[in-house]
Order: sequence, then structure tokens, then C-alpha cells
Amino acid sequence: MKKEELKKLIDISAGRELADIVIENCKIIDVYSGKIIEGNIAISDKWIAGIGNYKGKITLDAEGKYAAPGFIDSHIHIESSYLSPEELGKLIVPHGGTCIVADPHEIVNVCGIEGLNYMIEAAKNTALDIKYMIPSCVPCTPFENSGAIIDASKMREPITRKEVLGLGEFMNFPGVVAADNEILDKVMVAKESGKFIDGHSPGIANHLLNAYTAIGIRTDHECSTVEEMNSRISRGVYVLLREGSACKDLRNLIKGVTKENSRRCLLCSDDRQPRTILELGHIDNHLQICVEEGLDPITAIQMATINAAECYGMRDRGAIAPGLRADIVLLEDLEKFKVKNVFIEGKEVARDGEYLLEIKKHSIESVRSSMQVKDFNIDKLKMKLKSNKVYTIDIQPGGVLTKKGIAEVKLDKDGDFIFESDKDIVKIAVIERHKNTGNVATALLRGYGIKRGAVALSIAHDSHNIIAVGISNEEISTAVNKLIEQGGGIVLVENGEVLESMPMPIAGIMSDKDGVWVDNKLETLHKIATEKLSISTEIEPIMTLCFMSLIVIPEIKISDRGLFDVKKFEFIKLEVEGV
Amino acid sequence: MKKEELKKLIDISAGRELADIVIENCKIIDVYSGKIIEGNIAISDKWIAGIGNYKGKITLDAEGKYAAPGFIDSHIHIESSYLSPEELGKLIVPHGGTCIVADPHEIVNVCGIEGLNYMIEAAKNTALDIKYMIPSCVPCTPFENSGAIIDASKMREPITRKEVLGLGEFMNFPGVVAADNEILDKVMVAKESGKFIDGHSPGIANHLLNAYTAIGIRTDHECSTVEEMNSRISRGVYVLLREGSACKDLRNLIKGVTKENSRRCLLCSDDRQPRTILELGHIDNHLQICVEEGLDPITAIQMATINAAECYGMRDRGAIAPGLRADIVLLEDLEKFKVKNVFIEGKEVARDGEYLLEIKKHSIESVRSSMQVKDFNIDKLKMKLKSNKVYTIDIQPGGVLTKKGIAEVKLDKDGDFIFESDKDIVKIAVIERHKNTGNVATALLRGYGIKRGAVALSIAHDSHNIIAVGISNEEISTAVNKLIEQGGGIVLVENGEVLESMPMPIAGIMSDKDGVWVDNKLETLHKIATEKLSISTEIEPIMTLCFMSLIVIPEIKISDRGLFDVKKFEFIKLEVEGV
Repeated sequence: MKKEELKKLIDISAGRELADIVIENCKIIDVYSGKIIEGNIAISDKWIAGIGNYKGKITLDAEGKYAAPGFIDSHIHIESSYLSPEELGKLIVPHGGTCIVADPHEIVNVCGIEGLNYMIEAAKNTALDIKYMIPSCVPCTPFENSGAIIDASKMREPITRKEVLGLGEFMNFPGVVAADNEILDKVMVAKESGKFIDGHSPGIANHLLNAYTAIGIRTDHECSTVEEMNSRISRGVYVLLREGSACKDLRNLIKGVTKENSRRCLLCSDDRQPRTILELGHIDNHLQICVEEGLDPITAIQMATINAAECYGMRDRGAIAPGLRADIVLLEDLEKFKVKNVFIEGKEVARDGEYLLEIKKHSIESVRSSMQVKDFNIDKLKMKLKSNKVYTIDIQPGGVLTKKGIAEVKLDKDGDFIFESDKDIVKIAVIERHKNTGNVATALLRGYGIKRGAVALSIAHDSHNIIAVGISNEEISTAVNKLIEQGGGIVLVENGEVLESMPMPIAGIMSDKDGVWVDNKLETLHKIATEKLSISTEIEPIMTLCFMSLIVIPEIKISDRGLFDVKKFEFIKLEVEGV
Repeated sequence: MKKEELKKLIDISAGRELADIVIENCKIIDVYSGKIIEGNIAISDKWIAGIGNYKGKITLDAEGKYAAPGFIDSHIHIESSYLSPEELGKLIVPHGGTCIVADPHEIVNVCGIEGLNYMIEAAKNTALDIKYMIPSCVPCTPFENSGAIIDASKMREPITRKEVLGLGEFMNFPGVVAADNEILDKVMVAKESGKFIDGHSPGIANHLLNAYTAIGIRTDHECSTVEEMNSRISRGVYVLLREGSACKDLRNLIKGVTKENSRRCLLCSDDRQPRTILELGHIDNHLQICVEEGLDPITAIQMATINAAECYGMRDRGAIAPGLRADIVLLEDLEKFKVKNVFIEGKEVARDGEYLLEIKKHSIESVRSSMQVKDFNIDKLKMKLKSNKVYTIDIQPGGVLTKKGIAEVKLDKDGDFIFESDKDIVKIAVIERHKNTGNVATALLRGYGIKRGAVALSIAHDSHNIIAVGISNEEISTAVNKLIEQGGGIVLVENGEVLESMPMPIAGIMSDKDGVWVDNKLETLHKIATEKLSISTEIEPIMTLCFMSLIVIPEIKISDRGLFDVKKFEFIKLEVEGV
């Protein structure tokens, strides 16, 4: 706020000057006292001047609608929507979202701090206010090649930026609890900058949870039971009740929200795909679920507003009060939370589900998908197995966990795997794409269902190398080469031809198109995947593959360096030993 | 926290190393969930390692006592206790006070930023953690000579210090609401530094309150009704429920505390004299009153702990949880809140009402009371009235307000006032003591009761010039000269002799002695004031005089520049006009 703006704000608040806008006849949600106040809201530039009897240059009659503070999503990965910040903003804002706290973990794994820079710049083109956390675990493990390594020294400058609230979810909780030296260095960066540290601590309890939270963990969005939730609240950790496209903990956790602890509860989506937003909404949907589950609507709104603002020290928002940002959502009701108008910084930015601003976009050149794949050729896909009794990565439908299976497979004379159409086992490959290492790892995947062609993606958590699956080396090779040609994204091939594809020019993990386009494209891809390639309908054909390289999730995964046994936390051979 | 300390903290939390101290068998107040947890508290250096089954190098059995987080007094003027920070700490800590937010308004009026510097350095010698606000109104008005002028430019560096939380109570609320240019500059300093602004807005409402709070006012401790309290909470202002030696609003305001709004309520004492602390206590007394008035004890404790920490962004305290400061109070009960042991930063600092640390003191040389009084002599006390019909400053017992009276008085041949023993009217003088201006102003005071001798003080709000009252120019002159000789404080004289005195070598407003000494001395002074000088027993003889120069409090006061009509906000002549 500049001094002139401050003067104008005071003059309008005091009633000496006309407000820029007055929103009349509101039922205003007072998140401080838990009451509803009937009145008019006066706005001066980007700020609320006051509630009361004001006259404005522009008057909008809210006709008795509820006025709530703008909704805050306390933890989200923008990349999981496959959309740019600008396009995600366009989808979220009409649902009352005015601020998100985003962890750009994926793009930073690919592009390093340049990825964060892009996300910060792109965010300036949307009305949605995007705050970022610096990903704390890049790379996710030392057992893979990502596009960047972000150690403590690389965090020191970015963490001081005004758009950055702190360090992102500390997924390496075993490392924290073990007081690993490199982790201590990262924690010290956060402490010295006076910023926050987000948590991620599924399943840990008692002493280990004490050790994890003692470093200054501010939040946790991985609770799935009320018991876990309470154990974190008692340790001063804000609990983020998550409802995403994949993980849905909200209904479960609401049962643990009380008058006494609700101030320490927030809402978040973590991952939210375009389809989910288009069909169900965003935080408005969380609020609806809260009320369906019996929570008081004002308590629910507090979780989406003032509680989040308090948690993250965002003192300029979270309520409708003098001097705060004029981020206001007009709601038809407090049951369905149907959003009518959305104001951000005093400007009406959405009405009746439509985003009202023109979409400008930041250049993607600095993060344009790069495919630094050295010497890829079909021979690199060939296995030289010494035994036909092998370990398989067994997909578990409905999640990202896998089981370590054993199978007997058919081999050619050189020991390469041969696909048999009556067995649901295919070759999976990870091809390093960031550093020209030439790394190609292969393994065997069971339960994917594919019977024809191949699939290749450049979205492969968390390092986002190329991951490909197909019925033959030829099909896989075609898919990988086509993917490299199109600069990343998704391709489905059969008999050497591309059946369908979705380019992802932003770091190879995000589209530059809008949410509806992406959603339609994903639908087509899914349809072709199941109908033409016969991929199992029990699984999500794209997302399932994306997670086969996430080597921190049990039981068995694959990185660009080989087959990885998560329980042993080491690489293993494909052949079952001692045969 | 250093990296080695962080490592040790994690190791102790995780149970791999012995804790430095374990406090066993506690009923721990969980301010996050509003529950009581039975358990042991482990401490690592200055921090809490966790609650659970821990072993320590030292073990203390709490024998089932309640363990609460250390109490925070959210607003206090240390100077009002007449004690140095070190000696106030000694009094407060045994009552469970572990942190205070202090506004050094008085010493900064006398010594400028040098006064703040002294307070910060002195605070390092007490276990009590003292945070400061920079006084926002120095001088209080342009109608008086104080020791310093603190404009926006002088605030810019001090506000960035780690011990400073922001700008102190913005008492000049008319100036804020009018958007005075100098005030805007000060507000911009706070905004640009990202720090807080305390409020002080008795009586204002509606649009003016919107304008006042719109600048980013964080707190208000001047509410006296539930209606005022609610109007501030709804505007995002934390309400500090005050219980001081002079102003007692707590019982009144507790009626307005609800489950919904309690998180926005804090506790403060504002002014707390040694007598009050020695007899009643400090925040422990506030808590006792809360419970007497029917408030849930945990809600009350939250107001003294986590709510204050949240309000002031002190993320390192306010609860008993891993990683926070080990500021812990062991309580016998949750009714009387009898304090047994107090830990600050992991060290036991008080037990059974005794402060356990040796008192070291910071040098007071930089703020040693200076009496820059030019050419003071008895002639300067002489009036030259043109009429015997004059305005009087009429004392109102029980407060600091005065009434503008009119009286007919006896004059000598030169027009000087002559004291008549059957009339309760005496001469009052303010003698400038900071800048050698030579200013001496005189007026007439009614209702003080004095019949013999004179009183002189160097505590005279807010500029702290010398204020003196006596039955003759000779007595007043003696008192002033004796006060100058002793370097400030308080003197009572009769017939040219000092009856009793209390030196205040720290800026002329604070003693360098301990709380018991100061309390005893004040008692003696009061006794002599009433018994020997016949000062009215209906008023507090010292404090009443201190406020006769506070020219922002109606109706009529006196500064070093003359008699001041607060309603007209201008100087007036002593003689009633048009006679």
C-alpha cells in the first residue's frame, strides 16, 4: 500500500469520500465472532474500507447474499492439474478461490529454481493470489536423476522472496527424524529467514512425531484418521483437511473438528484435476462437504479463510474487515455454497461461474520442455535376463502403492522379455531426459492390461523422466521417439502410429491450453487407452503410470537407474535370486 | 537456534538422547485442543522436546500439578511500576509471567531512542522476555516540550530490531482518523517493516472506528464495555482485557468473551504498580478473576498464552509443544492459579514465589535523570493576574479527568496568588527540564487538599517535566530545587526541609531499587503526604499529580507552556475572560 492509497482508504473509511465500490445488502460472515452481520461493504482501491452505511461511485446490490472472505486453498500442487498457473486461476476463481498456497515440487524437480521463477511470474497474470513454498526434497531421493538438485544453499535467496512463504512439505520424514545433516541445513535456512515449514508425515506418531514437529513443522495435510489429526494439533501443527482428486480425507477428518480445535484446522486439495474442478468445484466443494457432514457453516468458512491466513501469517486477508484485501465471495447459500460473484483486491473477477478477466500468459520459454535424451535407441530397451523367474511391479488398483510380484516369463535367445497376450505382464521403461546421461532402465509391470501398442509420458513422479509401457520394444521405442519429437506430454501409439497425444510444453509436465481443453483431451486419451490399447478400466491409465517411478512409495518401483525395492530402500535385480 | 542445538533437540525428541530436564507427572494444558493431557515434558536446552515417556539428566516431579505455557502480558508500561526492567522481571516472573509486550512511552518521551536502547539492554538481564513497541506519539502533543521528538524517520531503524514488535498504541486517534500527514508517515514505517501497530481508541465507533482500524491496528486495550469490545473484534482487532492498578476492565469485559470470539481476546495490565503485584499478582491474578467470573480456565489460559503469541506473531511460544520455548508454569490449581515453579527457556527461574536468579543490572548512565532546568528561581513562580476570577484545574477523585472550575482567589499587590488555608486551592507549576528552555508555567489546582509544604515530581505525563504543588512560592521553590539536586523523583518538603524523598535516577521516572523498596517508599510518601501535608485521602497524592500535565485527557491541564483547555485543544489564560 502506498501512502496516497492509505490516505484515500482512511478518507473513504471515515465517510469523507465516496467509496470506489459499495456492495449493498450483504449478509456478511464475521469470521472473528462467528456471527452474520447484515450490511454494506465499502471498498477503496484493493482494500476493504469498512462495513456500514457508505456511498460509492459504483454500487452493487448483493440482494441479501452471503458475503464471505475469499477462500484459501492451503496446499496444492498446480502441476497436478496439468495447467499453467494462469489457467488454473481461471478455473478456481469462479469457485471463490482467491488464494492458494502452492508447492511447485514437480516443476522444480525438472527445471530447478528456474521453474519456481516461471511459476511466480506466471502467477502475476491471474487474479488468483498464489503463494509458493520452496520444494524441500529435490530430488526426491538420491536414487534417481532429476533435472535439478536444490540443497540448502540454493534455497537461501528464493526463500526471502515475498511470494514465498517457506519450505514445502518435508516428505523426507525419516531424514528429519534421523537429523540428517543436509536436512538440518535446509531447516536452518527456513528458521533463519523466519519463514514456515510445511509437513508431510503420514503414519508417524509418539516420539518420532515429536522429533518431526520439533523442527518447526507448521502444517500437515497427510492425516487420514481423527487420531492422527488430534496428535498433530496437540503438537502445534495446523491440520489441513484434504479433499483432492486422488486423496479424499475430508469426510473422515471433519468428525474430529470441534469448537475447541477448529482454529487449528484448514482446508486443502493437494491435487485437483480439471475434471474435479469443473464437476465439483474447489474449496466451495470442501465447504459443502463440511456442512453435509454436520459442521457449522461459519466454522467451515473459518477453516477456508481466517485460519489459513493466521497459519501462514498472511495478515492482509482472511476476513471482511477494514484495511484487509477486498477478497470477497458472494454466496447464494451456506449449504451448497453456490458462488455468485467473486472480488479479488476490490475488482469483480468472476460472476456466475465465469472468469471475467482476459487471460494473458507468461512466456514458457524458460521452462519449455526439454528432452535431453542421449543416444536413445531400441537396443537400450532390450533385456538380457539370466533367468525367466523375475520380479514384477504389480499395480494395485485405486492407489499408488504396488506389490512386489514374482512371475515366470518368456525370453528370447538373448534373454529379452517376450510379451504374451494371455499374460498381463509388459515391459516398462524409464528413460532419463534431463542430463543426457543415456540412462534407460527396464522392468516388468503386471496389471496394466495393455494388449496393443504403447504409452509414453514425460510426467513421472518426482523426477519426471520419460516413462513408457508397451507390448514390444518397437512399440515402446516408437512411443518414446514420438514423445521426444513433440517435446513431452503423453502419447499413445499402435503399429508405429500415434493414436492420440497431448503435448505438455511446460517442463514436459503441464499443458499450455485451458482447463476444458485439457479435460477433453484427457477424456479422449483415456477412451483410446482402454478401447484401442485395452488398458485395464480398473485403473486410471495415465496417472497410474506417472507414479510407477515414485520410489518412496512401497513396495517396488522403477527409476532411470533401475528396479527399486522401496522396503529395502535399494536397487534389486530383475531376476529372482537363488534360482 | 543453532544447528547443533537443532540436532540435539531432534535427538532428544526422538528418544535417542537423554533430555536435559524432564518434568514428570504434569497435567498439561493443551491450548490447541482445549484439553488436559497427563504426561511428562522433556526439555532440550531452551526448548520443549516433547510430551511423552522420556528420561532426563534431571528429573523434577510435578506431583500432578498443572503445566501451563508461560503467561504473556500483551500490553504494559514498565515505567508505571517505577521499576527498571530487571526489577519488574523479578516481581512478575514468580507469578508465571514469562513474556511482556512493553511500550516504553515514558522513557522515550524523556530520552528518545536512547531510552529504548536502555530498555532493550536492561531486558537482557532478566529471565522475563520483554518485547517492545516503539512509542508512536512522542511528544504526546505539539503543545509541550518533551525530551525527544520521534518522527517517522527516527522509527525506521529501531522498528527493524528483533526485540521490537511494532508501533506502540496510536493514542492520537483523531490524527489517524483525519489522515494527518505525519501519522501516515509513521503508519507507512510499520507497514513497510511488516510489523504491528497497537491501538488505543476509547469511545470511537462506526465509521471513525473503521477509519482507525483500516490503517492496520492490531490491538485495543481501551475497551470498557462489551459493545466496544465486540465492535473491535468484528474489525479484526484483538481486544486486550485490561486489569491494571488504575484501570480495571476485566470483570466487565469477560461477559463478552464467547467460545466463538475468545481466540481474539488477550490479557494485559497496562499499568501495574509494585503494590498490586506484591498483593494480587500479575497475569495469574487476571486468570483468577476470569474463572471467578465464570470463564472456562483453559479459555482463560489461552488468552494469556497462545492467543497473545498468535496476535503478535511470536511463533516460538504460547503452548507446550515440540520445538517451542520451554516457558512453563506449574500451577497448584485452576481456580486461584497459585504458581509453584516457573521455567523460562528451559531453566527454572522461580519457585514458591521467589525469583531464583541473581539480579544483574545494566548501567543506567545513558538514561540517568537529567535536570536541564535553566535559570529556575522563585520569581518564575509568581503570577501577575489581572483579575481575581480565575479558572481552576479541579481534581476528580478516582481518575485522571479534571473539570474546568472557576474561583475567586486572593491576590497580592502584584497580582500573585495568595494561598488561603480555608480554600482548597493551591498553585501548581510545570518546569521544563529537558532542553533548558527556562519555561515555567503556573496555574491553580483545586481539590488536592494540601495545607502545608509542597510536593515536586519529575514524573509528569507524558513529557515528564517537573510538576510541583505547594502552598507558597517559597515551599514550591524549595521542593523544585531539592528535586533538581537529587536528580529527579519525588520530594515532599515543609518549611524549607525535605520530609521524605524518592530518587528516580532512571530518566527521572524510575527507581533503581527493587519492588519491595519502592513499595515501602511509596507507602511512606503517601503517609507523610496525608498526615503531614494534609493532602486529601480521597486521592492518590503522587499519581494524581503525575497526570495533571497529560494534556490529552479532559478537561483542563497544564504543560510547561501554560494552562491548556483540552476541549478547545488550546492554551487559555488563567483569568476568566470578560470580567
